[in-house]
Amino acid sequence: MKATANNKTLDDFGEAGIIQLIQGNVSQKLPPYVKKGIGDDCAVLAEAGWDKTLLVTTDTMIEGIHFTDQTLSPEALGWKALAVNISDIAAMGGTPRTAFLSIGIKPETEVSFLESFMAGFNTLAEKTGIALAGGDTVESPTSAIITITLLGDCLPEHVVYRSGARVGDDLWVTGPLGDAAAGLFLLQNKQAPPPSGYESLVRAHQEPMPPLDVGKALGESGLAHAMIDISDGIAKDLGHICEQSGTGALLQATSIPMSDKLQRLAAEVEKSPLDWALHGGEDYELLFTASSADEEKIVTLTSKISGTPVAKIGTIIHEDGIWLETEKGKERLGSGGYVHFSS
Amino acid sequence: MKATANNKTLDDFGEAGIIQLIQGNVSQKLPPYVKKGIGDDCAVLAEAGWDKTLLVTTDTMIEGIHFTDQTLSPEALGWKALAVNISDIAAMGGTPRTAFLSIGIKPETEVSFLESFMAGFNTLAEKTGIALAGGDTVESPTSAIITITLLGDCLPEHVVYRSGARVGDDLWVTGPLGDAAAGLFLLQNKQAPPPSGYESLVRAHQEPMPPLDVGKALGESGLAHAMIDISDGIAKDLGHICEQSGTGALLQATSIPMSDKLQRLAAEVEKSPLDWALHGGEDYELLFTASSADEEKIVTLTSKISGTPVAKIGTIIHEDGIWLETEKGKERLGSGGYVHFSS
Repeated sequence: MKATANNKTLDDFGEAGIIQLIQGNVSQKLPPYVKKGIGDDCAVLAEAGWDKTLLVTTDTMIEGIHFTDQTLSPEALGWKALAVNISDIAAMGGTPRTAFLSIGIKPETEVSFLESFMAGFNTLAEKTGIALAGGDTVESPTSAIITITLLGDCLPEHVVYRSGARVGDDLWVTGPLGDAAAGLFLLQNKQAPPPSGYESLVRAHQEPMPPLDVGKALGESGLAHAMIDISDGIAKDLGHICEQSGTGALLQATSIPMSDKLQRLAAEVEKSPLDWALHGGEDYELLFTASSADEEKIVTLTSKISGTPVAKIGTIIHEDGIWLETEKGKERLGSGGYVHFSS
Repeated sequence: MKATANNKTLDDFGEAGIIQLIQGNVSQKLPPYVKKGIGDDCAVLAEAGWDKTLLVTTDTMIEGIHFTDQTLSPEALGWKALAVNISDIAAMGGTPRTAFLSIGIKPETEVSFLESFMAGFNTLAEKTGIALAGGDTVESPTSAIITITLLGDCLPEHVVYRSGARVGDDLWVTGPLGDAAAGLFLLQNKQAPPPSGYESLVRAHQEPMPPLDVGKALGESGLAHAMIDISDGIAKDLGHICEQSGTGALLQATSIPMSDKLQRLAAEVEKSPLDWALHGGEDYELLFTASSADEEKIVTLTSKISGTPVAKIGTIIHEDGIWLETEKGKERLGSGGYVHFSS
């Protein structure tokens, strides 16, 4: 895509259009050490003379767009800003190592905000063995702005790309889906008194814990053919796998893992739990494909990793598109995930 | 420094206080592969089994704080956002390799803005052999926000830190100083008709070209004991070298290199050219120290690199503080460079 109409806005263009514009503008050919540039969860760099590959990811969170003080406490923000990057490293099968933190904050921000932010950041960094090695602090005119760049590594033969799905592969997912979206719903629709017993949903939104060990085990075992993290909703993220693998996918509605809490809340507030699970986003679970012959191996491997259930939710198919099979039949899913720059 | 007064704002704290707060909050000990974390131009990572060290730097530029549409065209912004990161790699003696670009933009931004931004970015990336390998595009509520993380490399024995200055060292600087500050003055005080003949000053502000080859040659030759790039003004940046080396410095006012254009403009608008040169900032030149026995070697080495004059501007001394010798005597310089979060 080449933009010619100069009066077009980025809003018309959408995030995919913007990424294509940026990519298309990279006129120089990528050097051979860049095994993967734009278009996967991480960039993959093979430095000459090093037996490992470097994984690099960067994510920006802006107040008013990605969070508000109603949805994330400063401590939860510190945790989550790091977690979304860890999730990208997990989705390549890698190990996160070194973080770089850029913060833009208003001068009138209280020091306690930054202290709480760092407390949340450090709790997760220590849990996952990540060292904070640099960054930048700048003044921001209006919103808090957090950009984290996270470096990780992986043996080259263990890196899992989005592009490796094969027709006939089983489709797997970690964790229950939709909890984060339901938690966000609770935070944005505060009732008095707030419904009790839903702390796990709120926590899923505020302090996601990406299944790093599963990602790594899948990479090391060679069992996963393709992998991505679920940040924008499974419908959209599965679309990325299919697009890059040249396949389609068929999901079984009854197999989508959903927590009891999610289903109870959905009934209470008259929402569709499946909509939250398919389109909600921000689950930071892993979606991967594997040969159907390896089903037992997947179950054995992941069952050794405590606290991370996996579920087989569908199949990679030849036909284009993401399809959902329900008791009513087969329907084609729109990419109803979170779309940046959608009007 | 540990913040205890919770009602203190970051404005009271200043950038140095914020960095100390972040550093102090990094309670985990840095792992051995992090040769240098926060506190130099780049982080220095020695990956096990790799003969080179990885250099990492990240810089954020926010509309309304670091630039406006009056001071930087979209194309100049693309160039400069990359240049300020290249400057950090140059200051370690390294070679820049791989860039990651995070952009936050308002949805109503015209596509042509991003096209021009990328054109500026790519022009400098091609000139310096940098590959754009990833990033993030997000919606921003008000300002354009650019964060670039740049990876480079260097042989471990060639890395030049801020902390290596020794008493008796000569103090050297590349390029003329103050042009960028004078260019910013022109851009912010547009007169009709604008004074002609000052294009080089405006260009110094908008499209700085860090002296990469000089930085690399100084690192490889082992001649530079300490090095930093001049981003906040020589008085402040020299302060970082002295602080980390446990020394002071004495500058010779008559030796500070200033362009004819700078001096002509300063006379015309009744400003002090020396103030611009000492405190203006954003020169993205290199400041380094070297043994006084190596003066001839420095001149020979740098004279081979076309277009980058160097000047000997002072001495590293035992006494604390940054001192300026003028015809009137010796005065102690305040760190009058650009201070983030100063009230």
